[in-house]
Amino acid sequence: MRDLFDRMNEPAEVNVAPDRGRGVIARYRTFLPVSESTPIVSLGEGGTPLIFSPRLSAIVGRGCEVYLKYEGLNPTGSFKDRGMTVAVSKAIERGAAALICASTGNTSASAAAYAARAGIRCVVVLPAGKIASGKLVQAFAYGAKVVAIDGNFDDALRIVRELGQRDDFAIVNSINPDRIAGQKTAAFEIVDELGDAPELHLLPLGNAGNITAYWAGYREYRDAGKSRTLPAMLGFQAAGAAPIFHGRVVEQPETIASAIRIGNPASWEAAKEAVRDSHGVVDIVTDTEILEAQYWLATHEGVFVEPASAAPIAGLFKCCEPARAPAYPFTKIPEASRIVCTVTGHGLKDPDVMADRLTTLNAVAPNEQEVLRAIEES
Amino acid sequence: MRDLFDRMNEPAEVNVAPDRGRGVIARYRTFLPVSESTPIVSLGEGGTPLIFSPRLSAIVGRGCEVYLKYEGLNPTGSFKDRGMTVAVSKAIERGAAALICASTGNTSASAAAYAARAGIRCVVVLPAGKIASGKLVQAFAYGAKVVAIDGNFDDALRIVRELGQRDDFAIVNSINPDRIAGQKTAAFEIVDELGDAPELHLLPLGNAGNITAYWAGYREYRDAGKSRTLPAMLGFQAAGAAPIFHGRVVEQPETIASAIRIGNPASWEAAKEAVRDSHGVVDIVTDTEILEAQYWLATHEGVFVEPASAAPIAGLFKCCEPARAPAYPFTKIPEASRIVCTVTGHGLKDPDVMADRLTTLNAVAPNEQEVLRAIEES
Repeated sequence: MRDLFDRMNEPAEVNVAPDRGRGVIARYRTFLPVSESTPIVSLGEGGTPLIFSPRLSAIVGRGCEVYLKYEGLNPTGSFKDRGMTVAVSKAIERGAAALICASTGNTSASAAAYAARAGIRCVVVLPAGKIASGKLVQAFAYGAKVVAIDGNFDDALRIVRELGQRDDFAIVNSINPDRIAGQKTAAFEIVDELGDAPELHLLPLGNAGNITAYWAGYREYRDAGKSRTLPAMLGFQAAGAAPIFHGRVVEQPETIASAIRIGNPASWEAAKEAVRDSHGVVDIVTDTEILEAQYWLATHEGVFVEPASAAPIAGLFKCCEPARAPAYPFTKIPEASRIVCTVTGHGLKDPDVMADRLTTLNAVAPNEQEVLRAIEES
Repeated sequence: MRDLFDRMNEPAEVNVAPDRGRGVIARYRTFLPVSESTPIVSLGEGGTPLIFSPRLSAIVGRGCEVYLKYEGLNPTGSFKDRGMTVAVSKAIERGAAALICASTGNTSASAAAYAARAGIRCVVVLPAGKIASGKLVQAFAYGAKVVAIDGNFDDALRIVRELGQRDDFAIVNSINPDRIAGQKTAAFEIVDELGDAPELHLLPLGNAGNITAYWAGYREYRDAGKSRTLPAMLGFQAAGAAPIFHGRVVEQPETIASAIRIGNPASWEAAKEAVRDSHGVVDIVTDTEILEAQYWLATHEGVFVEPASAAPIAGLFKCCEPARAPAYPFTKIPEASRIVCTVTGHGLKDPDVMADRLTTLNAVAPNEQEVLRAIEES
């Protein structure tokens, strides 16, 4: 292990990342749709760690290096904050008095936080009965107004679009292009730290806005002379929610990875282009593989992510097992590749999936020997 | 509000923070007890945002600027990671095969994560029956071995100390001085960003290791010529767990702020020195004030913290209300002071305290008018 630790700490490989904690607009202003008069609403998002993974690197082998872009360390615990700072800043510039979105998860949490920061209201519209309150804790904590409707998610999105026609509301669902613009900054940060683009970039694929944003970011940065190469983009869908993989809308998407439980992605076409133009692939991983990868990552690298974030890790494992016929087999990975996996949200976002791991504890006598015995039992 | 946003984004006030995501040892190696041969175990901790709070600044007034050091954006969601990277790196250097601690909260989460990263075991010893599993989700997620004993917390700590005598175990409770050493880095970061120490530093006061660490960090940095001044250190205890404020051990400490529910702080004397030498104070805030400050901060600045982290915010409010006879009254705060409040942990650490805010949702008809009516009702 010693050599792995040394590599974790090798200074030559990674450049300095300036401007941490200032937010992505302060750092990448010239690449974003803001002007000097845009009031910046930021919570210090971005600048997340790019963590070298010695064990994933060893699994891939052949001199490859695997890095985790730990987006769970954004202010509300997910990558959504990168886009939200841009979307909310632009909304304030236009004079919006409220944000509105249809979301039960990371988008509503981020919208609620940035609305609070901006001093405007946030409205979250949801189908009644589909609301797991655990996922809404953040929306309530940040003071959002949550409205439940007698209808499905499409109804909620339709109403959000209707209300978004009014001057006082700004829609912050992923149809808002400012969000994609902000999410590009994660690609910029990776290039800034590695000195060039990685060879491969793996990420979860749900609504497909993030793969679209990363690909746009990598291309823009190359066109600006900040990097020389482009990565292959590999997107991983949950097997029960894989419309892009199967090439058809999934009416009832099902997966434990709620953040990618999407049957009809908003950025479907853009994602297909990103995969095609980058010579990447879309592949699927099962819920079992996702949960195993999640637990593996927490127990082997100390990085706890929400289930959706484990999809690219499960995907990387799949790529490394020729017998499982992945869409992007091991042998296609160039030697000495730098591989980045984006892990999109913190594990604390969805603690319930860990419930099975909370074993019942039988109390032992309060002495050294009994505690040692209990330790050695396991 | 516009001028507040402008100030949030004013570049002249805050310097560049280099080395984000590399971890605190990589960034501050010369100030830490590591050598070139120490294997560094890091998860990219530190480099957390220093968020300007326009509304707290307005409340304090008189040209003061209030900043939030958002330690919830560390890898396991609390400031403990700063000390744990040092403690675990040193433990690996000494050849330890396991970490051991008695903790139900942030320390066990951090220890479990860094043990996983280091490839060694983590043992958490706890009193049976006192275990709220929600607080232990992270320890289980990172694969720690949790042992419940028939005894109280003192028994657990005694056993941990006994086992810590063995070569293969490394104690990572706060009696481990490497943890305090690592926690100093938060003070370094604040000085690096502000260009000097702030005039006031407010933080929660529980086991008192953090106030000890910050004070040591500010002094070391000044002695190294990195800053010219030192802040007054203001520590806030929960009214039901205020041994330092009252000058006596509290046998049954009670507060909703579990991270500072401590009746006999490990760093009691060092904390008293920090407060005395810095011309600061120790004061108390009630659970009601803590919960109000927590909700205020989330809904007014978009920063969601665990209850203990809201203690300094409640404390700042108290300082600003002369009628409440705070130990450090408003009038003592110098004009144009820079005031930093450390918020120690992310709100997602303790979602249960938000349960009261999860209002019951009555579904409305799925059309624009009904949704608008529901929005306007509130």
